[in-house]
Amino acid sequence: MREFLEGKQSDVAGLRAAYVELSAHERREFLALNANELGRDQERIAELARVMLDASDDDRSQEEEALRQALDDTPWLRLLRLFNRLPDGTRFLVELRADLLQFAAEDPALRPLERDLKRVLEAWFDTGFLELRRVTWDSPASLLERLAASEAVHTVVGWDDLKDRLDADRRFFAVVHPHLPEDPLAFVEVALTRGLPTTIGAVLDQEAPTVDPATADTAVFYSISNVEAGLRGVPFGHFVIRRAMEELRLELPRLKTFATISPIPGFREWLASQDEAPPIDDRELLLRLCAIYLIEEGSDPVLRFHLSNGARLERLSWLADRSERGMAQSAGLMAHYLYDPRRLDANSEAFARGEVVASEAVKRLIEGRRLLRRVR
Amino acid sequence: MREFLEGKQSDVAGLRAAYVELSAHERREFLALNANELGRDQERIAELARVMLDASDDDRSQEEEALRQALDDTPWLRLLRLFNRLPDGTRFLVELRADLLQFAAEDPALRPLERDLKRVLEAWFDTGFLELRRVTWDSPASLLERLAASEAVHTVVGWDDLKDRLDADRRFFAVVHPHLPEDPLAFVEVALTRGLPTTIGAVLDQEAPTVDPATADTAVFYSISNVEAGLRGVPFGHFVIRRAMEELRLELPRLKTFATISPIPGFREWLASQDEAPPIDDRELLLRLCAIYLIEEGSDPVLRFHLSNGARLERLSWLADRSERGMAQSAGLMAHYLYDPRRLDANSEAFARGEVVASEAVKRLIEGRRLLRRVR
Amino acid sequence: MREFLEGKQSDVAGLRAAYVELSAHERREFLALNANELGRDQERIAELARVMLDASDDDRSQEEEALRQALDDTPWLRLLRLFNRLPDGTRFLVELRADLLQFAAEDPALRPLERDLKRVLEAWFDTGFLELRRVTWDSPASLLERLAASEAVHTVVGWDDLKDRLDADRRFFAVVHPHLPEDPLAFVEVALTRGLPTTIGAVLDQEAPTVDPATADTAVFYSISNVEAGLRGVPFGHFVIRRAMEELRLELPRLKTFATISPIPGFREWLASQDEAPPIDDRELLLRLCAIYLIEEGSDPVLRFHLSNGARLERLSWLADRSERGMAQSAGLMAHYLYDPRRLDANSEAFARGEVVASEAVKRLIEGRRLLRRVR
Amino acid sequence: MREFLEGKQSDVAGLRAAYVELSAHERREFLALNANELGRDQERIAELARVMLDASDDDRSQEEEALRQALDDTPWLRLLRLFNRLPDGTRFLVELRADLLQFAAEDPALRPLERDLKRVLEAWFDTGFLELRRVTWDSPASLLERLAASEAVHTVVGWDDLKDRLDADRRFFAVVHPHLPEDPLAFVEVALTRGLPTTIGAVLDQEAPTVDPATADTAVFYSISNVEAGLRGVPFGHFVIRRAMEELRLELPRLKTFATISPIPGFREWLASQDEAPPIDDRELLLRLCAIYLIEEGSDPVLRFHLSNGARLERLSWLADRSERGMAQSAGLMAHYLYDPRRLDANSEAFARGEVVASEAVKRLIEGRRLLRRVR
Repeated sequence: MREFLEGKQSDVAGLRAAYVELSAHERREFLALNANELGRDQERIAELARVMLDASDDDRSQEEEALRQALDDTPWLRLLRLFNRLPDGTRFLVELRADLLQFAAEDPALRPLERDLKRVLEAWFDTGFLELRRVTWDSPASLLERLAASEAVHTVVGWDDLKDRLDADRRFFAVVHPHLPEDPLAFVEVALTRGLPTTIGAVLDQEAPTVDPATADTAVFYSISNVEAGLRGVPFGHFVIRRAMEELRLELPRLKTFATISPIPGFREWLASQDEAPPIDDRELLLRLCAIYLIEEGSDPVLRFHLSNGARLERLSWLADRSERGMAQSAGLMAHYLYDPRRLDANSEAFARGEVVASEAVKRLIEGRRLLRRVR
Repeated sequence: MREFLEGKQSDVAGLRAAYVELSAHERREFLALNANELGRDQERIAELARVMLDASDDDRSQEEEALRQALDDTPWLRLLRLFNRLPDGTRFLVELRADLLQFAAEDPALRPLERDLKRVLEAWFDTGFLELRRVTWDSPASLLERLAASEAVHTVVGWDDLKDRLDADRRFFAVVHPHLPEDPLAFVEVALTRGLPTTIGAVLDQEAPTVDPATADTAVFYSISNVEAGLRGVPFGHFVIRRAMEELRLELPRLKTFATISPIPGFREWLASQDEAPPIDDRELLLRLCAIYLIEEGSDPVLRFHLSNGARLERLSWLADRSERGMAQSAGLMAHYLYDPRRLDANSEAFARGEVVASEAVKRLIEGRRLLRRVR
Repeated sequence: MREFLEGKQSDVAGLRAAYVELSAHERREFLALNANELGRDQERIAELARVMLDASDDDRSQEEEALRQALDDTPWLRLLRLFNRLPDGTRFLVELRADLLQFAAEDPALRPLERDLKRVLEAWFDTGFLELRRVTWDSPASLLERLAASEAVHTVVGWDDLKDRLDADRRFFAVVHPHLPEDPLAFVEVALTRGLPTTIGAVLDQEAPTVDPATADTAVFYSISNVEAGLRGVPFGHFVIRRAMEELRLELPRLKTFATISPIPGFREWLASQDEAPPIDDRELLLRLCAIYLIEEGSDPVLRFHLSNGARLERLSWLADRSERGMAQSAGLMAHYLYDPRRLDANSEAFARGEVVASEAVKRLIEGRRLLRRVR
Repeated sequence: MREFLEGKQSDVAGLRAAYVELSAHERREFLALNANELGRDQERIAELARVMLDASDDDRSQEEEALRQALDDTPWLRLLRLFNRLPDGTRFLVELRADLLQFAAEDPALRPLERDLKRVLEAWFDTGFLELRRVTWDSPASLLERLAASEAVHTVVGWDDLKDRLDADRRFFAVVHPHLPEDPLAFVEVALTRGLPTTIGAVLDQEAPTVDPATADTAVFYSISNVEAGLRGVPFGHFVIRRAMEELRLELPRLKTFATISPIPGFREWLASQDEAPPIDDRELLLRLCAIYLIEEGSDPVLRFHLSNGARLERLSWLADRSERGMAQSAGLMAHYLYDPRRLDANSEAFARGEVVASEAVKRLIEGRRLLRRVR
């Protein structure tokens, strides 16, 4: 593989063509075989590190830079840049990362390749370059089909369901990057309602009457999904929610409340790990335990996502998601995270300091905790 | 300044607004004052370097990565990313680099800031993302005005001259990046001719009859300019010439020759540095000396640019540029570099190995060298 | 209503708003009530006609023009122009014509209004202004939904069927007019095949393997539909087929045959009107009778459409359309009309002179006619 | 020529190609030679007129329609439709009309051809299809060049003047029709000012400081021009002014006054036709005479244009246009017509009834009329 790096652009095109033809198994073998050779020149780096440590104050900065360059100057990173110059090169790198994420989970030797590729993609897909686009029923059918297939939270069950999610009282925003203008990276689905709905069924009900958007007071973010497996860990969620809020406030100044209806994916597993699993059908008990799980554990991934974005844990709803997955993961409960435009920065900083920002109502659920223990 | 990095996006907007209001002198002072604080944490880096050197083989890779992260994790780089998230953030960073290039020329303490900003811009403006666009008389007047003002080689002397450069037997290609879609980064001007013109005056003559492009056999690249001072050193020239050739071959399959008519900016100065400056009006002698200068010195910047792109030094023309600058820099001579589509990679590699690739005709000029010395 | 014509644009907007709110019955009554007042000034026309007949040769032309103006200058035509100046005015006029076509079928007093509106629309929607656009799976979902609903020949039975009609070996062309850029007026569906398929089932089969378009030798026009009821009788079919052929020949130069697979909508009814209805299951007899019906009667509307466009009746296929409608109207038979690019004008002129242009193969079917009669 | 009408589209293309190659003189001869044959079938028309006059009440309407069709069904109109189907056909017809307007001025036999072509173009270029587009310094240079060349009122004297007319305190609106999307049909130039300027020199002064549009209270329409000679008499002026006002009110709600600064092209000639030509340098006398000319004669073409659009004659300015043309035609005076959004319809109707709508201030100028006569 190294020879490609000294060669011509056409060789790199050939390398890509060959890679694409391989089976998953062959791809992994091929990458593993070359991982070492594509990595850093450790001897040279060690030498430069010693030079740097011995350098005078005047030369220190220069020697640090020489070391940094050596650390960054791997055949792998050079190869990635060559790939990027091919037609659809960025597209290929995103797919290559999806491969590497899968392979590196089992083969630690591939982790540096995956990590470096992520770093390159993070620089290129910096939030500063993202654009928010409204998706409607007038969007290309092929795009709608792709987005529907990527819906990771509440499965789209056909074109009627999809059209319903693009109805007059719905908004659908996608994140697009100029390097992949045809391929949205993430999207958020919004329902415009009067008051906050307490079940996801009410939101997804195709038979429900359409709300006049001009009379809605609440925007419910009911689904946020990433589209590209190869961009996992490159953060778009923060961007999509903040920008969607801006768009919504501009279009519909009467909206007062911006909140989510979200799964609590780790709750049921956590429950099972407790000494005595409580009966699912005790509403009060379940809500209390859920508040304990979210606030005291603070480990739920959806909670962490929204709190880091600046939201507050606002409310819990019982029997809010009766789907198979909803029962299995969240014991049927759902959480509402409130995005208060004036509190986003403060909340986000509080969470960075370790606080689980929550409403009084949710906190009160925990106050009865000691009592709860005793009852048990 | 450091406080901005812990603060909110709105503070960064304020910082930019404040910076933009400063005079050049104040900007330089402001950056110099903060340069140290924005730079690397040298103690931490030294410690991590020692840990890395002491690490076992198994841990080495991980410790290298920790060191690399520390070297890359400066307040300055974090600040640049925050700037980039502002509206027109990339635009601002390009202008900031133009400032820093100017300031760092006199103040070495600012060089690391300039260098890191260049590195960030290089990643974002990678060749793989560039697009070639044809510029015509149907392009926006504001764009044409800006391009004309950026013409660094042969000054545009009014709208008639500009329109002439967009005539039927001319092509004008600009390089655009999706992050700055309205602001071309570089451009190349092409004349379609029958045979290679031997003076730039013939190319720029507005009175000359228009050649039917279908009958042209030669494409002359007569001017290549960068537009953005803030992207100096970020290489676009390679891209613009190769892609322009592709477009031209697609549109006009009868074109056989792709060549330049280029200044030799270092020639006159080199001549002056020789023992005996030869009379400018001795054609044969001047051509020989010029061949010696180009081939044996190998330092002329325009020569290096074209040879690294894969061109060959093809021919020298006497009294080819009688403009004030042409006489002062190049002693009136011009060089022609030939871009042979089948030889680009081979030539480029030869140059990378240190060879100045030249035609037999130019090489023959040097063969008389010893003779020349004797005559003198 | 007359007062609107002397009034302001805002009154006309009010009139439209009021009309749109009416029920179909009320609309018809409203139009019928005003039909007379909106029509021609017969007395003035009679007078001008007399003046014209009495005019000297020198004045004749001028008097003819005065008469023409009076014939054209009705309150109705003035009102139509005022409607057209409203936002979405053209759209409204197309819908108004759809109403009038329906009403005038039963109320002859409304025919002049319908006829004049058709004339205005014919001028605006002149073939010279039409554009052909390719429709693909990347087209807006809303557009695809609308086109599918307008498919008048072979019903689209869901999104999978629709997607199949936009597959790699299918082409879908729509006719668009700049005045209604979002609303296609007509469309044609094309299958790219190797050889001419003899049943419509083979064309519509979603399970059939996709043909590589580069290897196809035949383009089968298998469905041509108008979208706007209000533009009935304004001819787009000629345009859509000729332009689609041009596009196909440009894209796929290997295509040799352009032909249709078409219903024979009047055949079964004609059969029933004959003395002795022949058994549907006698292949040879049925084909002969069908050739007689098409060639000797010459009244089949689909035949007349294609022959006036310059096609030739090429072949008949037995048991080619087993759908309910196919059996009921065409006795399961389908006709193939051949569009030979070199013969279009000649064929079209021959048809204009009364000839039913047909292949030798179809003509031979008739030769046995006398025999047929005897057998019966 | 008649044979073309029975022939093929390709023949019509040939006819156009041949016509375009002819000199102006040859074109006129060619059209004159064929004018008769392309016109109406007078015998048939006379017969149909007689049938119509003899028809019963029941048949009358049908016979009128038959007559109308015969009057409309000329070889010339058929030929025009065939031309329109050619690529760039509409463009050709507009140029053909420009020819005919010129030829028919001297050859009455060509007037019917010109008149019928105008009628066809009027239907296609109906106001309902027009679009208003803002022209800016970002518009294509080729478009700006063409518009500048078409400026019929105040000549554009170079690119600096043109750029000044697109400055921040200027607006430039063009009328575009979807059939000729690249070729504006008419345009209006607007200056945003504080108070109404009393000389055109103040408006066109490139050195004058730029007004902040947000502080302007007045929009001055200082130039209205048609671009296409071939569309003379097809009315766009009404549309361009009303729509430009709508755009301006939307963008700049603080604008209170919409008015023109207009030439009075017939004034000097009318003055010369009076018994005693008054000295040009008597301000008061000249203003009075101008008011008499405008209000009592009511024949000035610019006055008629604005009053029919719904404006009011508001003010006269002395020494307002010192250009050669301004002095020669308007004796240096200019008129201001006020467009009051609430009075447009009422004013337009009053003018249609024969009233010259004028402000009290201008009317007062006339009151001294008798006195004036006496003085003289």
